[in-house]
Amino acid sequence: MVEYRSLRWMDGTLRMLDQRLLPHELKYLDFTDYRDVAQAIKDMVIRGAPAIGAAAAYGLALATFHSKTKDACGLLRELDDAVLVLKAARPTAVNLTWAITRVMSKVSDARSYGLAELQMIILEEANAIVDEEIYTEKQIGLNALVLVPENATFIHHCNTGALATIEYGTAQGVIRTAHEHGKSVFVYVDETRPRLQGARLTAWELKQLGIPHAVIADSASGYVMKNKKIDLVTVGCDRIAANGDTANKIGTYNLAIIAKAHGVPFYVVGPTSTIDLSTPNGDMIKIEERPPAEITHIGKEQITPDGVTVFNPAFDVTPASYISAIITEAGIAYPPYKKSLPEQVEKAKVYWVAKEKS
Amino acid sequence: MVEYRSLRWMDGTLRMLDQRLLPHELKYLDFTDYRDVAQAIKDMVIRGAPAIGAAAAYGLALATFHSKTKDACGLLRELDDAVLVLKAARPTAVNLTWAITRVMSKVSDARSYGLAELQMIILEEANAIVDEEIYTEKQIGLNALVLVPENATFIHHCNTGALATIEYGTAQGVIRTAHEHGKSVFVYVDETRPRLQGARLTAWELKQLGIPHAVIADSASGYVMKNKKIDLVTVGCDRIAANGDTANKIGTYNLAIIAKAHGVPFYVVGPTSTIDLSTPNGDMIKIEERPPAEITHIGKEQITPDGVTVFNPAFDVTPASYISAIITEAGIAYPPYKKSLPEQVEKAKVYWVAKEKS
Repeated sequence: MVEYRSLRWMDGTLRMLDQRLLPHELKYLDFTDYRDVAQAIKDMVIRGAPAIGAAAAYGLALATFHSKTKDACGLLRELDDAVLVLKAARPTAVNLTWAITRVMSKVSDARSYGLAELQMIILEEANAIVDEEIYTEKQIGLNALVLVPENATFIHHCNTGALATIEYGTAQGVIRTAHEHGKSVFVYVDETRPRLQGARLTAWELKQLGIPHAVIADSASGYVMKNKKIDLVTVGCDRIAANGDTANKIGTYNLAIIAKAHGVPFYVVGPTSTIDLSTPNGDMIKIEERPPAEITHIGKEQITPDGVTVFNPAFDVTPASYISAIITEAGIAYPPYKKSLPEQVEKAKVYWVAKEKS
Repeated sequence: MVEYRSLRWMDGTLRMLDQRLLPHELKYLDFTDYRDVAQAIKDMVIRGAPAIGAAAAYGLALATFHSKTKDACGLLRELDDAVLVLKAARPTAVNLTWAITRVMSKVSDARSYGLAELQMIILEEANAIVDEEIYTEKQIGLNALVLVPENATFIHHCNTGALATIEYGTAQGVIRTAHEHGKSVFVYVDETRPRLQGARLTAWELKQLGIPHAVIADSASGYVMKNKKIDLVTVGCDRIAANGDTANKIGTYNLAIIAKAHGVPFYVVGPTSTIDLSTPNGDMIKIEERPPAEITHIGKEQITPDGVTVFNPAFDVTPASYISAIITEAGIAYPPYKKSLPEQVEKAKVYWVAKEKS
């Protein structure tokens, strides 16, 4: 087993795993300049919402630790520049903006602080984001344990592992936690076209964790459910509407329909921060279309005829009626989600408020 | 539009389109030696059951046309060698053995014939196989017309076009015939992992035919059905059991479940020769597993970690309950298939017997 982390703060340096080289090479890159961090986010050295958020927060810490300015006012001006540069790295990544805003809120009234104080405040907030993320990931895995049989065969879609987060992952963390709690686990990994996060990243992570698995074509899930004993399906989520409709990586909706047709429980897994109570249902979620090249090319290999038309939605929306339960750090939400999701959000809020006070 | 054919007999030469180079290059190879034809079948210069059968039949014709022997007896011995070599090219391809057996049955009592007569008998039988195949393909397309609306948006899986057959294709021929009859047609093409016949071949064929289309990831079919107006799904078939259960390219079963969930008609298309009344249901159909490399690599590009485990079933079985109708050259079979499929087989038999007598 190779120990790995998507990112780590090391005494003034941000070390990130270069995910573009996976699964073929395990290489870390060290960053001391926030501009390079922004470029790395843009170049997808690191991906996955929680991982990107943490990288941006540490990017701000780098800006303070490696500044040449002599006073706090100068540093705050530099930080304002860093905010703009880091936010622009992946403009649609909500988590990135959220993390930056959170860190900066700690220094908004800090013009009276000294340089060293500012450095500490920012680094501590970046660390707090990472610590909370790790707590959330671990708690999600623990909460899911009751849903995982002692001998469990999963079908899993996309990545949602430590690479996309910090330490455990969300949906993949459910698998890891079950494995670490002594359950006997086997995972059929959807390769997850078009970007192949399953084949490239999840297969690599499961290998590191010593969890037995087999990669399948996404279109083989029905055959697998019909001919193998599949106990559950786990997927992550990009946004959960108030009624439980869930936007996630393209192919999630197909897999949910296939699971229902075979009576296989279908679990959505994610932090309560993914629950968006202001969005009443999935019809309100706008789906991004991604570039045709993801379909027409794999690496340097062109598959399709020149100039072919491609339709490449990046996500789909799975209606709540296909979702057996939604697992968060606050517990397990069952239908009706209109009732159970606000309860989850409230429970999580109470926990963090209590923690802040303690 | 580029005119193309999977193969063509040209005055003592068999010309075949090298499908390995598609969609990037349109190149024909000329064959005069049956051994080279066998190697080309093995190397997948040509694929698709009907196309392979025709290639093997013409391979036998080549053996007679380019023989150096002086008498019919010597030629028949050479033909016996050719039979072995051609049959061994793709041992599991039923159509290949069928075509060879059919051609050879015409010369089994032919020891009294002269050389030129033998050549003619064999070439005529090979031509007859091709003519009947073309009749079958065209008739399938015509029979399907009533099921295709004037403005029709398809989702299509795999290839099943002229490349896999001779001139029109089977399931893809339904699309082509509708287009040629003036219907307004749009096709969402499943890329069809792992071998990508949709992205590589169907997209190329539709381009030649001037039929508007867009390639999608197989896992996007649910999203497409939910968000676009999809009128029907067309797929081919490798074997149809007596109860209508249908074995076809992996992903067909998923697509059938997705179609049913959206109320989209799901049509299986193929010649009556694919109906196997001796197989009572789909549970009896053994599914071939294909090499892991189809999942781990695309072209020269390795996707997965070294040594990854892969599960790669080549086909799946779609239960009859998901199939709206089965379209053959004899007509349209509706459920219950136990009744309608034998009728189709009988009707086709009557046609060919009548034709033989005429």
